[in-house]
Amino acid sequence: MNINITGTGSYIPNIIAKNDDFQKHEFLNVDGSGFPHDNKTTIAKFKAITGIEERRYLDNNLNTSDIAVIAGQKAIEDSGIDPETLDYIIVAHNYGDVKHSSLQSDTVPSLATRVKYHLRIKNPKCVCYDVLFGCPGWIEGMIQAQAFIRCGMAKKCLVIGAEALSRVVDKHDRDSMIFSDGAGATILEASDEPGGILAHESATYSFNEANYIYFGKSNSSDAPEDIRYIKMNGRKIYEFALINVPKAMKSCLEQSGKSIHDVKKIFIHQANEKMDDAIIKRFYKLHGEEVPDKVMPMTIQELGNSSVATVPTLFDLVRKGKIKDQELSKGDVVMFASVGAGMNINAIVYQY
Amino acid sequence: MNINITGTGSYIPNIIAKNDDFQKHEFLNVDGSGFPHDNKTTIAKFKAITGIEERRYLDNNLNTSDIAVIAGQKAIEDSGIDPETLDYIIVAHNYGDVKHSSLQSDTVPSLATRVKYHLRIKNPKCVCYDVLFGCPGWIEGMIQAQAFIRCGMAKKCLVIGAEALSRVVDKHDRDSMIFSDGAGATILEASDEPGGILAHESATYSFNEANYIYFGKSNSSDAPEDIRYIKMNGRKIYEFALINVPKAMKSCLEQSGKSIHDVKKIFIHQANEKMDDAIIKRFYKLHGEEVPDKVMPMTIQELGNSSVATVPTLFDLVRKGKIKDQELSKGDVVMFASVGAGMNINAIVYQY
Repeated sequence: MNINITGTGSYIPNIIAKNDDFQKHEFLNVDGSGFPHDNKTTIAKFKAITGIEERRYLDNNLNTSDIAVIAGQKAIEDSGIDPETLDYIIVAHNYGDVKHSSLQSDTVPSLATRVKYHLRIKNPKCVCYDVLFGCPGWIEGMIQAQAFIRCGMAKKCLVIGAEALSRVVDKHDRDSMIFSDGAGATILEASDEPGGILAHESATYSFNEANYIYFGKSNSSDAPEDIRYIKMNGRKIYEFALINVPKAMKSCLEQSGKSIHDVKKIFIHQANEKMDDAIIKRFYKLHGEEVPDKVMPMTIQELGNSSVATVPTLFDLVRKGKIKDQELSKGDVVMFASVGAGMNINAIVYQY
Repeated sequence: MNINITGTGSYIPNIIAKNDDFQKHEFLNVDGSGFPHDNKTTIAKFKAITGIEERRYLDNNLNTSDIAVIAGQKAIEDSGIDPETLDYIIVAHNYGDVKHSSLQSDTVPSLATRVKYHLRIKNPKCVCYDVLFGCPGWIEGMIQAQAFIRCGMAKKCLVIGAEALSRVVDKHDRDSMIFSDGAGATILEASDEPGGILAHESATYSFNEANYIYFGKSNSSDAPEDIRYIKMNGRKIYEFALINVPKAMKSCLEQSGKSIHDVKKIFIHQANEKMDDAIIKRFYKLHGEEVPDKVMPMTIQELGNSSVATVPTLFDLVRKGKIKDQELSKGDVVMFASVGAGMNINAIVYQY
């Protein structure tokens, strides 16, 4: 038995926020001090490091679970399965549904239940739960789904990553420009077709790293004391990821029995262009190789970092020929890899 | 290979809130209208239905993840395992860490990461994630852990259910008297010992039931419009549970190959004494039997409904001889069963 992705879908929100739209923001350091240069310079530096030119935000009337539904619906249609045959709906997110202009996360019922409700699936044996695992949550959901399939608990799973980081950003924090909203989904199935998931790797580094990404106060002392936002220690994350992600990817590739020369595409979490470039460079260096041309499709320039949604969205776009000069052929060995809050790292080697 | 519980632990918060402590609350119906009788009558009726006399609340300086750590630590000590050998830490909850007097849920990093951090576990291969599955979350975490063990992804898992419902109750809602705080934990291990998990059952009913338990506005029109609280439609839940929980338990027992006469104890979610009594009565009736004496240990009278924490706490207390006239012997067949937001239902048949 193999475990294959038989359908994909994604939802890219309508509102485009360009870098220029941040020109009038009052950016502050963590200590509340201002920057020594104007916003034009801040934004130019930001773009040079992250590669981000624009990002997408949800319409005010939509929530994370709404776009999870849309991505899930597309993946179901793409796979051609009867939704009533789904054994699991797994939704990875980190903040639940946060209504526009609201402070509270709504996670009861789970976002997976909301997806099933809106998909109008009746079968009670389609079990719905949410997984919280930082940005690598969608990959972790896939690893969990493959475990259920492997041990006979499931045949078909819908795994969704959906997040609306625009609802939890501190507008006084330069990092707010990184974050965006989106949803990606896949159908994972037991199959007699060749290929599928060949290996996976998963880890949580918390001893020193637990709070590299956290929920913290605004950089502005004028903001209410008790309201918190998504926060990160970018420098520490960069150093951490650069050491540990290539190592995890290498271990995963070794387990798969495939060689570095077999790898056709790497779908990596769209966190930061420079960081992703450095990770892939080091991953190839660990194998004594140079990074091949076009091995790493990227969407961060236009879509920003939508947490759990980046990898399934990217995979969906490439699979459907929507990214220039990027395509997949039957039999291609690809990798999924992610790093994020936890600090969690994971990877999958998958034969298309 | 069998999959056994080798350690248990729980944390029962210090603050005792007695029914009398609610005498001065202004209880209102969902439409904002008052009750036709005084609070003394309301509380007496409440006690007659739910069985609850008092409940436990967290100290103001503690959060859900803090008590998850304590319960987890106790389970580790009880099992005697080296915590560095854990492959997974799975924390079931529904609201994350909600600080006292705060509105926001904090779930980044995950509560499982926080537990691992405070347990000072270094091994990065100990993977930490949170599962959101309503009140049945701890049982679902156990089902997931057994899947990972069964397919060779894990040997030892720490599964915790922790919740602080006192942080999300509407004091104008009579149901606020039901909810409490707590944490329970287990170590689940691959083992050559006899017994262990024999069967499980899991389901999500969302077609009509998704919003039976939800996050909604206060019953008081004086409360801020945009603040939401845990809310439930008690009557619908009662009817739903009474039909579906006994059915799921029966199906689970059939899968286990054990007979109704083998069942020594049923550890059921402490939701409401009358409801639990009715569920068990119907479960036995489905087998043409009367409910045996002392088959269903209960803690709801003193501990209230602490969501994901009730079942592992109850099991820990019975296992350690802390509940009068309740004990377990090697080889006893027991059942775990739960129902809650989703609406989710699950059950496990376990040989002690």
